Amino acid sequence: MSQYCDLIIENVQIASMQYNGMPYGAVPYSAVAVKDGLIFDIYNPTIKPYHAAKIVNGNNNWLLPGLIDCHTHLVFGGDRCEEFEQRLQGKSYADIAKQGGGIQSTVKATRAATKQQLLKSALKRASRLADEGVTCIEVKSGYGLDLHTEIKMLEVAQEIADHLPLTIVTTYLGAHALPLEYLTKPNEYIDFICDHVIPVIADRKLATSVDVFCESIGFNLAQCQQVFEAAKSHKLNIKAHAEQLSDSKGAKLAAKFGALSVDHIEYLAPCDVPAIKHADSVAVLLPGAFYCLNETQKPPVASLRENNIPIAIATDLNPGSSPIASLLTVMNMACVLFGLTPQEALFGVTVNAAKALGMTNKGCIDQGMDADLCLWEISHPSALSYGINQHRPIAKWIGGSMVPTNKHV
Amino acid sequence: MSQYCDLIIENVQIASMQYNGMPYGAVPYSAVAVKDGLIFDIYNPTIKPYHAAKIVNGNNNWLLPGLIDCHTHLVFGGDRCEEFEQRLQGKSYADIAKQGGGIQSTVKATRAATKQQLLKSALKRASRLADEGVTCIEVKSGYGLDLHTEIKMLEVAQEIADHLPLTIVTTYLGAHALPLEYLTKPNEYIDFICDHVIPVIADRKLATSVDVFCESIGFNLAQCQQVFEAAKSHKLNIKAHAEQLSDSKGAKLAAKFGALSVDHIEYLAPCDVPAIKHADSVAVLLPGAFYCLNETQKPPVASLRENNIPIAIATDLNPGSSPIASLLTVMNMACVLFGLTPQEALFGVTVNAAKALGMTNKGCIDQGMDADLCLWEISHPSALSYGINQHRPIAKWIGGSMVPTNKHV
Repeated sequence: MSQYCDLIIENVQIASMQYNGMPYGAVPYSAVAVKDGLIFDIYNPTIKPYHAAKIVNGNNNWLLPGLIDCHTHLVFGGDRCEEFEQRLQGKSYADIAKQGGGIQSTVKATRAATKQQLLKSALKRASRLADEGVTCIEVKSGYGLDLHTEIKMLEVAQEIADHLPLTIVTTYLGAHALPLEYLTKPNEYIDFICDHVIPVIADRKLATSVDVFCESIGFNLAQCQQVFEAAKSHKLNIKAHAEQLSDSKGAKLAAKFGALSVDHIEYLAPCDVPAIKHADSVAVLLPGAFYCLNETQKPPVASLRENNIPIAIATDLNPGSSPIASLLTVMNMACVLFGLTPQEALFGVTVNAAKALGMTNKGCIDQGMDADLCLWEISHPSALSYGINQHRPIAKWIGGSMVPTNKHV
Repeated sequence: MSQYCDLIIENVQIASMQYNGMPYGAVPYSAVAVKDGLIFDIYNPTIKPYHAAKIVNGNNNWLLPGLIDCHTHLVFGGDRCEEFEQRLQGKSYADIAKQGGGIQSTVKATRAATKQQLLKSALKRASRLADEGVTCIEVKSGYGLDLHTEIKMLEVAQEIADHLPLTIVTTYLGAHALPLEYLTKPNEYIDFICDHVIPVIADRKLATSVDVFCESIGFNLAQCQQVFEAAKSHKLNIKAHAEQLSDSKGAKLAAKFGALSVDHIEYLAPCDVPAIKHADSVAVLLPGAFYCLNETQKPPVASLRENNIPIAIATDLNPGSSPIASLLTVMNMACVLFGLTPQEALFGVTVNAAKALGMTNKGCIDQGMDADLCLWEISHPSALSYGINQHRPIAKWIGGSMVPTNKHV
């Protein structure tokens, strides 16, 4: 007696991204049954235990979980392309900052933008990611810095999911930079974040996590700790931009608070890696910013591997240090620049990226998981990391429903 | 009295890429009239001197010449993604070569592939480039090495233009690598190229240029000179892969033969730059290969600038050292990795790329030029180099005829 399902995708090779002992969690010749938006079963298709109204022949292509970009700043006003040009013409960062450039120019443009303007530009960027097989995106605030604009950014981020087949996860990043109105009083700005913004964010469910930029040019350990304490008291998760430009011990502090992830970490000292392990935090590597900033200090990948720290990869999509709307390109950068294997890169944008967002229902193809799936016409899963702009999914499902992909030859 | 044209594109900002003294050859508020596939006039739209059946409102977006990728190897069999994975797992180049990997694996796969198989995979890659606003692509042979397969590759390359709105320019690159059947007799292989292949290529108009890989792991100066002499005697243009891995003096030799371009040139000695200038050759920079190979020696950009050498940028799209099907990404790499300005990068994929192909009818928006045009919804032409995977043309014309663009939000 065969059971009834909603959808069967048969004749596929599956990169399940389960840790099943096979490279890429591969299930070589298989079929997937979907019911009520979830993976119901992965089975040997010669047995044919299921019926379904919709049966898709995968033509022996590769079925993968939808990709997850677990660290972006993709809602912002304006762009910084003329500043990019000025820097390459020889103008210094200091001169550009003096004329109102850098992050403050994005804060100004984001404050000035209407919600509709922010949404339009964010949708363009999000659709670029979605075109490449991304089905879930984390979006941070942090270019408003005042209460009104931070709320506006997070609302816009959440609205992306009304327009595109994407799951959006939002993070409040008030401690991103010091707004001009608090330039001489950073501690008062931290008080403002903790006392006046985080309670509103939590109350209105505008974000599930709180993030900080722990760095000499960002916020110090005591300030970050205060933000983490406020976040915890409102039952929000913790994330941190840490050790991007120096060994500031931000990752260790975040781990102490049970952070979901510590992000960047080029300067993380190997001696601090066990603390990350103890907290079960994910190490989120952001090779796009490393590339754009011409950095040379690489994250301690060997030490992360030795300690079995889950490694995720994300675009860090933002107008300053990583204007890169391509998770596949960043996977290639993780391999070329940081020496990750293509398998590590793919785990980094699936199961480990889900873990970095505290999601247990996405990131791999397994019974009971969300049926967010992409079908790829590739010879091997390593193909996704191997080149740049070579591949797009040929079919895509979100919660078991097929969504359009852009057609290419 | 107003004149009749085929097409008017009005209300646009034009980056003409003429050297008119304005950044990007800009004509800020303007209109373009097209007739018989050519640019008929660029004019002040308040005057309205033309009538046309088709009038397009550019909505104050930027109109640019179609982009030109002047150095690719995009016809080939197989891929090398599993080899990429092996290298990142720690396997040495020598071990991979021993098991038949590297360029020889591509030669084997290309020889084994049918024309239809080669065309299918080449169209996929070419369409990626076309999606980004590329309207003209140079394609080299060089993965066949025998007469039959080199002809097959060049015929497939030429057929791309039957399926996609692209101009294809072909180059014969027999002196790319030594085929296994000539492994112990490189001079005999060069004789074969000169005596048995170049005459056929010229006779059947399969290519307009002949290229060589002048390098210690490629061919030496005497061998390259012999190829250049044969090419010249058949009235074919000259190009060279030179100074990629060492200062082998290939660029100087190519310049002596009046080469259209010298490509890679990371190790070009500044003392050899005047010879390039004297020959009026274009310096084609290929930052994708530099990036993929983790190279550190950068091309002598300062010296090229001082000597007013035209600089072009290309993808070098190939399965080994640059599996990058994105000219926009490579423009970004030229800026980030080689320090070019966004303006130099854009000249490098328009007017200078046309010059590297010996084309005088493409690469800028000027009276009498081919009306290969793209309309971009960008704040400034520097936006094309500033980010990765951010922009696509919102409209495209080839020879004055509108062709479809993929739709994005």
